[in-house]
Amino acid sequence: MRTGVTMKAPAVILNAPQLAENIGAAARVMANFGLGDLRLVNPRDGWPQPRAWTSSSGAHWPLEGARVFARVEDAIADLRLVLATTARPRETALPVLTPRQAAARLRDGAAAGWSAGLLFGGERAGLESADVALCQAIVTVPVDVKFRSLNLAQAVALCAYEWWVGIEPGPPASFPELPAPAEQAAMLGLHEHLEAELDAAGFFHPPEKRASMVRNLRVALGRAGFNEQEVRTLRGVITALSEGRGRVLAKLAARNAAAGEP
Amino acid sequence: MRTGVTMKAPAVILNAPQLAENIGAAARVMANFGLGDLRLVNPRDGWPQPRAWTSSSGAHWPLEGARVFARVEDAIADLRLVLATTARPRETALPVLTPRQAAARLRDGAAAGWSAGLLFGGERAGLESADVALCQAIVTVPVDVKFRSLNLAQAVALCAYEWWVGIEPGPPASFPELPAPAEQAAMLGLHEHLEAELDAAGFFHPPEKRASMVRNLRVALGRAGFNEQEVRTLRGVITALSEGRGRVLAKLAARNAAAGEP
Repeated sequence: MRTGVTMKAPAVILNAPQLAENIGAAARVMANFGLGDLRLVNPRDGWPQPRAWTSSSGAHWPLEGARVFARVEDAIADLRLVLATTARPRETALPVLTPRQAAARLRDGAAAGWSAGLLFGGERAGLESADVALCQAIVTVPVDVKFRSLNLAQAVALCAYEWWVGIEPGPPASFPELPAPAEQAAMLGLHEHLEAELDAAGFFHPPEKRASMVRNLRVALGRAGFNEQEVRTLRGVITALSEGRGRVLAKLAARNAAAGEP
Repeated sequence: MRTGVTMKAPAVILNAPQLAENIGAAARVMANFGLGDLRLVNPRDGWPQPRAWTSSSGAHWPLEGARVFARVEDAIADLRLVLATTARPRETALPVLTPRQAAARLRDGAAAGWSAGLLFGGERAGLESADVALCQAIVTVPVDVKFRSLNLAQAVALCAYEWWVGIEPGPPASFPELPAPAEQAAMLGLHEHLEAELDAAGFFHPPEKRASMVRNLRVALGRAGFNEQEVRTLRGVITALSEGRGRVLAKLAARNAAAGEP
């Protein structure tokens, strides 16, 4: 098991969000990536909104705990580091960070005990310059210039994901460990078994090419990184194929003998 | 301007997607991150679905070009590298990659000219083991174990984002360059201007603390990294404040003189 996260995760501040579905979707990805402090500034359709609960798919706690504010200034008053997420070029003389750089800065702040937040604008208009000016840096998701329109909850997801993978970079701890690759002795046994059967079958033809054909086979099979169980299975496959061929040959020989042929 | 991306982006294969809204949302994030090849295996409600176009917010081309298949095998037949996105532990002996590792592998493949794809399961059930077994590796988004339920389009977003930022790691090229920080001579001019006015105002008290007070002020202001324009503005601020104070003092002195006080 991994140890729990002890750094305080950043707040997510949604300024003038329009669609309750997006608030719920934002809560869902916050829960996916260890965030819980949701703050809403002037949600267009009021608060609470049942549709947010529906679209959160069970991530209710950021919604239950969400606080509503009249101004961005009030929503961020207790924070020491606030990053403004915006896709639009600004005249504001703030540093522009990628989500990854922003996450690193948030983690640095959190490690120092700072409370921090990520500020997102509404679906249609994004953030006003006056709101951006309250922040210490801009976060811009590097989207394709051919299609810049990033969904609000997707923007939250990418920033939350980058926060999280800096803390929990691996797959979930409950994932089963991959079986180790087989020892090379087992692989050599597999190779020699196969090559012996192929010799018996007259596969290596012409004989002067045998060495390079063997080498190519060993490289191809070796690249798969078989584990012990797979090596045993493959040796069973070779045996089944070669015995099957043996039975076919025996049957042919019997038929030929019956017909008086050699 | 950055140069265009020349590597072929991976296909996105959605196996048995249920909600047209999620197909549209997936198309939208594909467009955000330079992907365009969308393949649908047995979409529950048939295809095409107008709601997908609505939720794509204008990213119509992945939807217009989407191909529908009856089986995963058919959908991936022309691909050389397919990664299965799944959050559920599997017995399958495939390597498990993070989205970042997966993106690196996809870029390696694309750089070698391979066609590649990312396979996603439906909203409710995810991928079957038999579908995972068609793939060369598993991709697992490292979500918080306390809330694993990741939206389909969010999963597409994170994988597509990781593909893209490996190619286009910076903010969009159209973002304005930050003005350079002012030369230190300009900063020194600002400091000395401020300190002279503070001396005149009797701010540095007691005098033996002046050196450390000046040092602390310079450190605090220096950390902001003011550009030339900001330095000019701040010098205007200092002038305005000190002249304003001068006017107030002159007014007070005039009033005191009229009252016969020193």
